[in-house]
Amino acid sequence: MTHHVRLITPHITPRPHKRQEFGDLLAPLRFSHVNIADGPPSIESLHDEVMCSPGVVASARQAEADGVDAIIIDCVGDPGLHGAREAVSIPVIGPGEAGMHLAATLGHRFGVVTISDRVRPLLERNALLYGLRAKLASVQAVEIGVLDIDHSGDTLLPRLLDGAVQAIERDRADAILLGCTGFLGLSDKLSAALAARGTPVPVISPLQAALMAAVTCLSLGLSHSRRAFPPPPRR
Amino acid sequence: MTHHVRLITPHITPRPHKRQEFGDLLAPLRFSHVNIADGPPSIESLHDEVMCSPGVVASARQAEADGVDAIIIDCVGDPGLHGAREAVSIPVIGPGEAGMHLAATLGHRFGVVTISDRVRPLLERNALLYGLRAKLASVQAVEIGVLDIDHSGDTLLPRLLDGAVQAIERDRADAILLGCTGFLGLSDKLSAALAARGTPVPVISPLQAALMAAVTCLSLGLSHSRRAFPPPPRR
Amino acid sequence: MTHHVRLITPHITPRPHKRQEFGDLLAPLRFSHVNIADGPPSIESLHDEVMCSPGVVASARQAEADGVDAIIIDCVGDPGLHGAREAVSIPVIGPGEAGMHLAATLGHRFGVVTISDRVRPLLERNALLYGLRAKLASVQAVEIGVLDIDHSGDTLLPRLLDGAVQAIERDRADAILLGCTGFLGLSDKLSAALAARGTPVPVISPLQAALMAAVTCLSLGLSHSRRAFPPPPRR
Amino acid sequence: MTHHVRLITPHITPRPHKRQEFGDLLAPLRFSHVNIADGPPSIESLHDEVMCSPGVVASARQAEADGVDAIIIDCVGDPGLHGAREAVSIPVIGPGEAGMHLAATLGHRFGVVTISDRVRPLLERNALLYGLRAKLASVQAVEIGVLDIDHSGDTLLPRLLDGAVQAIERDRADAILLGCTGFLGLSDKLSAALAARGTPVPVISPLQAALMAAVTCLSLGLSHSRRAFPPPPRR
Amino acid sequence: MTHHVRLITPHITPRPHKRQEFGDLLAPLRFSHVNIADGPPSIESLHDEVMCSPGVVASARQAEADGVDAIIIDCVGDPGLHGAREAVSIPVIGPGEAGMHLAATLGHRFGVVTISDRVRPLLERNALLYGLRAKLASVQAVEIGVLDIDHSGDTLLPRLLDGAVQAIERDRADAILLGCTGFLGLSDKLSAALAARGTPVPVISPLQAALMAAVTCLSLGLSHSRRAFPPPPRR
Amino acid sequence: MTHHVRLITPHITPRPHKRQEFGDLLAPLRFSHVNIADGPPSIESLHDEVMCSPGVVASARQAEADGVDAIIIDCVGDPGLHGAREAVSIPVIGPGEAGMHLAATLGHRFGVVTISDRVRPLLERNALLYGLRAKLASVQAVEIGVLDIDHSGDTLLPRLLDGAVQAIERDRADAILLGCTGFLGLSDKLSAALAARGTPVPVISPLQAALMAAVTCLSLGLSHSRRAFPPPPRR
Repeated sequence: MTHHVRLITPHITPRPHKRQEFGDLLAPLRFSHVNIADGPPSIESLHDEVMCSPGVVASARQAEADGVDAIIIDCVGDPGLHGAREAVSIPVIGPGEAGMHLAATLGHRFGVVTISDRVRPLLERNALLYGLRAKLASVQAVEIGVLDIDHSGDTLLPRLLDGAVQAIERDRADAILLGCTGFLGLSDKLSAALAARGTPVPVISPLQAALMAAVTCLSLGLSHSRRAFPPPPRR
Repeated sequence: MTHHVRLITPHITPRPHKRQEFGDLLAPLRFSHVNIADGPPSIESLHDEVMCSPGVVASARQAEADGVDAIIIDCVGDPGLHGAREAVSIPVIGPGEAGMHLAATLGHRFGVVTISDRVRPLLERNALLYGLRAKLASVQAVEIGVLDIDHSGDTLLPRLLDGAVQAIERDRADAILLGCTGFLGLSDKLSAALAARGTPVPVISPLQAALMAAVTCLSLGLSHSRRAFPPPPRR
Repeated sequence: MTHHVRLITPHITPRPHKRQEFGDLLAPLRFSHVNIADGPPSIESLHDEVMCSPGVVASARQAEADGVDAIIIDCVGDPGLHGAREAVSIPVIGPGEAGMHLAATLGHRFGVVTISDRVRPLLERNALLYGLRAKLASVQAVEIGVLDIDHSGDTLLPRLLDGAVQAIERDRADAILLGCTGFLGLSDKLSAALAARGTPVPVISPLQAALMAAVTCLSLGLSHSRRAFPPPPRR
Repeated sequence: MTHHVRLITPHITPRPHKRQEFGDLLAPLRFSHVNIADGPPSIESLHDEVMCSPGVVASARQAEADGVDAIIIDCVGDPGLHGAREAVSIPVIGPGEAGMHLAATLGHRFGVVTISDRVRPLLERNALLYGLRAKLASVQAVEIGVLDIDHSGDTLLPRLLDGAVQAIERDRADAILLGCTGFLGLSDKLSAALAARGTPVPVISPLQAALMAAVTCLSLGLSHSRRAFPPPPRR
Repeated sequence: MTHHVRLITPHITPRPHKRQEFGDLLAPLRFSHVNIADGPPSIESLHDEVMCSPGVVASARQAEADGVDAIIIDCVGDPGLHGAREAVSIPVIGPGEAGMHLAATLGHRFGVVTISDRVRPLLERNALLYGLRAKLASVQAVEIGVLDIDHSGDTLLPRLLDGAVQAIERDRADAILLGCTGFLGLSDKLSAALAARGTPVPVISPLQAALMAAVTCLSLGLSHSRRAFPPPPRR
Repeated sequence: MTHHVRLITPHITPRPHKRQEFGDLLAPLRFSHVNIADGPPSIESLHDEVMCSPGVVASARQAEADGVDAIIIDCVGDPGLHGAREAVSIPVIGPGEAGMHLAATLGHRFGVVTISDRVRPLLERNALLYGLRAKLASVQAVEIGVLDIDHSGDTLLPRLLDGAVQAIERDRADAILLGCTGFLGLSDKLSAALAARGTPVPVISPLQAALMAAVTCLSLGLSHSRRAFPPPPRR
């Protein structure tokens, strides 16, 4: 039976090209993609996290009602992750959680290269919650607005490279997690650029890590613990 | 000049009697109290936290527009605290944060006695975020629905006492923080009951702790750091 | 192209039936299985860990020479994991590392149920090294010799259930990782038994978790960081 | 009833102008101020901490005998804090403890700017004891003797500014705690100077924070836990 | 040249028989023993710690003036340790510090069996300061006054045994540190009693551990770092 | 009775001159020195650690059979330490463990200066396991091959000095542990060089620290806990 994985983009800006980030990984799967119905245009602050999360929960409920088998939240900040897990029984995957755990297994410490220093506290907070604070070498930022990424052309990769090099050489990261699910098609390019300058390390696409976490849950028949994330009380 | 403090109850159930918890502390202040416009009937899960937080942010914006000087969120889980801080410049106080920090200064370790074991992970998470995980002896629960507290009559105090005694004698708490802002008028009673059985420890009302945190900020002309909680980006 | 995954059993006792633990997960893969050439008959101590690890490294080198694409070490203690990673470039997966990280994403805290209390320190040590010590609720032991597992018949499941219940109810685990790769075919049974008594939580087979970690690396073109695990110096 | 708060300066150098640091905050209070009878001329080392602490305890006993309602120890190092708490039942407030907890609630991390790098270990030790080590971004020092502060004229503020900027820009502090109770009248000036250069963050006067902690305890009828700080045994 | 080690008893009660605890270890050394001139009759609280510490510093200065080569403070609470180190250049050894570090090297976790639960927070605090909090399984107490130890006859050993067994069986300690330097001649007896009941673990006398730490420093020509513990400033 | 201490060099390169590092410390002891029978030529990686450890265990067994009283493993990485402790009852000392604990007692934080940045993760891992991660200021490397140390003449000391100065001035180390047991006769020279440039701190030879740890165990009749390190199971 084909598993159906749904990507929930936790804001209202259309992002149809996200599908390409998954490439061949989607071959054995059914895939769908929705935006939340109402919320901010992008997720770039703790405020945005709060404002988008009810939409994530609503979309998660809809996904379960639609017979979807697993959900991926389309943001490295994992907004609404735990609330959505209480709302549904099917696996809900956060690319930040999936990416950080994967990064932690590939080296002693990992770095994150993200959009802006203003989301650094959010990512450091999540690393702490996930138990991986001591594995996080640093969060570097390229200072770009999420909505400008698609128009950044050739200027983005060098800035990601700069951030990654800082994380590797100064902060002793052994692996790099891209810190925004809007950084599309860049993990391989950054990996190649790092290798070209003599500092080859694994570079992880958070969306790809999330998809493999979903596949892992689906393949093993696992989902989040309902003791940890019980259904909300009826009142 | 009289400072105006507003209590934002992060759900839609009226709670006019909360004002009494503050008693004489309100004498030098102007006080107002609102519910959020839309959200769950109470906060008893990670799901409820997510669903109420946008309402907290909206009410915080309204409070600042109304010329309010400081805001208290009426829940020990501090829903929407950081998002609201990004949205406004006036102090936004979480009773959980205020109460845990106060409790941590009164002994070596503190216990929390709350409504239900299902909010234990949320409170443990917040203690971790606030830096106080090692100071938290344990979270005990009396297993009562928030909406049943007002009708619980004489049965609630003995259950709070049981939880507090567990925290003190087994988990070595030196102080107790009440773990729900719906536990009204109970800090003194629990304190007396603990003293009567030979285990006197400070008992903290989270709403009272929050009010004093607001007074502290207002008296010293302080508010949250805008470097930590910058205004959300304009897009 | 079909990926070839090799299971290296880090002792000298034949275990041909391990393959069954992977079931359908092997369908898209080529699979091979070897014992190390020389070492202890099972891994039940820090001493055994030391004595088997050179064999793991040698088998890892052989696997890479054989064109294998990824290696799984057949022990929850992950013996020789880091040494083998220095020796080869293909992914080397430890079932303990893979299983603990997976367990940590499914709840707030996980428990491990293993063979003997004498391997508890080893598993607690590894949880610390992996960054997950605070996520590990407890290690419970059923006190069985590894070589007796296959002959334990119907007596093993009730003992695993006892350990899991201790971890869940006393130590507040939300998920269970089986703590021995010799516990074959038991994750589903333990999961069902826990659900039957009203404490349903995810139960993870470490070998299955390891295989999915290998699949994740292979699917994403990732392996361990060579900055973290560089080839040993030539002398 | 008017509460009586006493400031105990834990050395023998007169400091009558400390009262001005409290300003209008003292309006609703009765205030008194004493030096300890015997001890060092200032507190600038672990040695000084040891030598002044019995005087703090003696002065605390005297304060309680005098009917004082709350005590503030006039040093950010909080010398004798726990010993004095065992000696008396009225609240004993440490400006370091009060200031660090307040700073921790205003941002993600705070910096301390103190007199000399030689008291850095003492402040780092106290942050660890208070549970706030991970919230402490760094301790910066202006390298001035305590007894030279009053004669430092216009040269002190620029040095405090330098330290604060280091803490903010390099060590990512979101708030600043002044690290000496001898830095009088400087919190507002430093706050203004930081804002003027585009890095506005809250700046906390430790004496003011301590006074509000005393007011909080007095307003709520709380004092330190006698289980945590029981009276010394009679022998 | 014979090294001269001085034991400083940090209270005013004569304890001439302490010398016997060192036995043959003193053979290659010169040994002297003093009480502090003024202070409490024993150390059983944070208050006592404060009140005795100036006497420890004064006695340390005198010891250095007397040409003593190393100092041992005669209390597991290590009162005045850091202050005395600032005051003198010769090694100053705390039996708590020496004993905890030694215990930490003999197993995965150690327990302390001390006089009273009221000194538990002090010992837990010191373990935290020494970096060994995670190695401390628990602090057990026999509830005896220090001044009653010498008259406790045959009743003390069974109580120490009870505490040690709790630490070992419930809290998983692998080694035991006696938690009072007044427990004389008991490490061997407790060790034998533990072996007799089938739970043999190392039992450490804190005074003996301290003497060997002094011998280690003297043999290697080491003392505490003067960068960590610089001489107090001259004023 | 003369105690017999054996140094086990965990590789196959003869190192007869190691004996000189102990100097007069050996006077009251019988001393012997062996290489392992089979293994790598030096220990410079996690791979080497794995490959040499069975030889360490075998040599430890032989030492106990030979009537040796205590064993020192001749490498700061402490390869095979825990496995050897399970194999024998006599004390097995790791110079890294002994040196780190000694360093931790001499200041607030210590630095390690070692051969190569590639063993930094191994030393950081061990500091974490020993409970001393927060005491470790940094690991500096001089980038020299172990087998080149003896031929490095006058060039090594300046490089050690550079590393030590980095650790002291930038990373705030108060004491230095030499990070290779091949750095012979250098602790005094580095100590003198540091003093000459105005940054005097204790410098610890790991072999000397290990010998004193052995003497401490032998003098006090202690060895590692057999509950922590039980004999391997018989199968």
